[in-house]
Amino acid sequence: MNSPKSATVVEVGPRDGFQMEKRFIETDTKIEIINALIKSGIKRIEATSFISPRAIPQMRDASEVVNKILRPKDVFIEALVPNPKGGEDAAQARVDGMRIFLSASESHNRKNVNRTIEESLSGFKEIMRIAEKAGIPVAADIAVAFGCPFEGDISLDRLHRIADRMLELGVRGITLGDTTGMATPLIVRKTCESLLKAYPGLALGIHLHNTRGIGLVNVYEALSLGLTNFESSVAGLGGCPFAPGATGNVCTEDMVYLFHELGIQTGIDLSELIKVARKVEQVIGRPLPGQVMKAGARLDLHSFAIG
Amino acid sequence: MNSPKSATVVEVGPRDGFQMEKRFIETDTKIEIINALIKSGIKRIEATSFISPRAIPQMRDASEVVNKILRPKDVFIEALVPNPKGGEDAAQARVDGMRIFLSASESHNRKNVNRTIEESLSGFKEIMRIAEKAGIPVAADIAVAFGCPFEGDISLDRLHRIADRMLELGVRGITLGDTTGMATPLIVRKTCESLLKAYPGLALGIHLHNTRGIGLVNVYEALSLGLTNFESSVAGLGGCPFAPGATGNVCTEDMVYLFHELGIQTGIDLSELIKVARKVEQVIGRPLPGQVMKAGARLDLHSFAIG
Repeated sequence: MNSPKSATVVEVGPRDGFQMEKRFIETDTKIEIINALIKSGIKRIEATSFISPRAIPQMRDASEVVNKILRPKDVFIEALVPNPKGGEDAAQARVDGMRIFLSASESHNRKNVNRTIEESLSGFKEIMRIAEKAGIPVAADIAVAFGCPFEGDISLDRLHRIADRMLELGVRGITLGDTTGMATPLIVRKTCESLLKAYPGLALGIHLHNTRGIGLVNVYEALSLGLTNFESSVAGLGGCPFAPGATGNVCTEDMVYLFHELGIQTGIDLSELIKVARKVEQVIGRPLPGQVMKAGARLDLHSFAIG
Repeated sequence: MNSPKSATVVEVGPRDGFQMEKRFIETDTKIEIINALIKSGIKRIEATSFISPRAIPQMRDASEVVNKILRPKDVFIEALVPNPKGGEDAAQARVDGMRIFLSASESHNRKNVNRTIEESLSGFKEIMRIAEKAGIPVAADIAVAFGCPFEGDISLDRLHRIADRMLELGVRGITLGDTTGMATPLIVRKTCESLLKAYPGLALGIHLHNTRGIGLVNVYEALSLGLTNFESSVAGLGGCPFAPGATGNVCTEDMVYLFHELGIQTGIDLSELIKVARKVEQVIGRPLPGQVMKAGARLDLHSFAIG
């Protein structure tokens, strides 16, 4: 396989995972988990969302979290920013990067942020202005990029049009999100090849879900295309809003296990990361989908004792 | 990807999954599930094990199950046969195929059947004689072929020596088992390439586990090597004896979903298979690892209704 020598793992659990939890996770616990993730060697973390506390109460401590976590120079802390108010707060908290987002389908964008795609794109201008003034780079997430649960397949033409507009706005990178787990290896290949061809040098990230069990197959396919930027969630935190009991984000430590077994460097200490995943499962208080945290790494051998 | 146009799914849940259940599953329920699997289009099923009822009480109805299930001509019903007594019973029940098994490591073989590998191989001669007399083909399973939980990596040399002996005995095919989920894409590639080169035309099957989350990545790798014989378990039935809570067999309907999305034909009706998986989960009475049965197939779209 034509896979890269190293890959960047972007941990999204503290934002994408925690925001689905109804019970408030104490700010100190969030900080402890993010710090442990950093200590395990993760270099890029989506730490929180600067969203209205009325919309998502779980994220009401966004500023405090960003202010109190470790901020080593080689770790890039990002936050989701849904609107100019969030942009101001994120700039104030001195995040390393802001993330703006919209959906590739009108139905999902309407459902998610109650706007048309055009309204979302217009709204980004003010966020970009705030970020530029603060000297903070902005990256863009395109949700349901590999399929929409309401509309089905997403045309390449539509993705190109959205990417064009995002790049015109001045984003530094684009991440394709498989929000409800509709990506397949063939669709990942077709989509990523098309975008990489149209935008040579684009920092193209991918955010895959394991909703239908093939999240890591899609990761494997994306690796073979040369992608090096992979979003995932520790312990597999986060679910799927349309399928109770179904898995959401690809699990970070399972993905890191795969990378290491393929000889792809991540800079992450897998055994430390497994400890964080087990801690996260304790905090959440129910079984989470991560597999490696249950089974241990490959050569954690068992002693042999007859009967 | 250089993948095959079609693949054979070998369903092992009724044997490999059920045998781990402590509570006895009623014979009629077993029959109902196997029949539903057949009706969904699965053409090869490991239906039971002709093992001592003292060793595995769950399999005490082996003969009755084989006698009472549907037996369409195009469906191949197999049973595990651990010893000559099991061979006689399996012959009596007129299975379409017998399966003999040993482990690639001495420690695992000792733990599993309390024999050396050499003792296992000797014991197979009598089973082969019984099967030949009954005109029933025999296939061989090599457990822990991609790694042993006690000994670690398995050398290719060892696998070749075991395969040599199995083929000398007259088996019609060999299946490599990833009994505790230690396979990785690189190991799958190295191992399968080596065996296919040494034994051109060998009917090489693969039995992968999802214990460390990469079961379907390994399936995907094996497909790219041209393998067409894949064992799996409906709903992901079966666990890992060394890791409580960890997943065992690759899930059949998730694998079939992957195959279909890759354009690989299986002859299976996925929506019918999902119904069987949900039924199996009800029978077992706890959540099982299958993902597609929770999320539905890719284009089972949701209706759009604003909040």
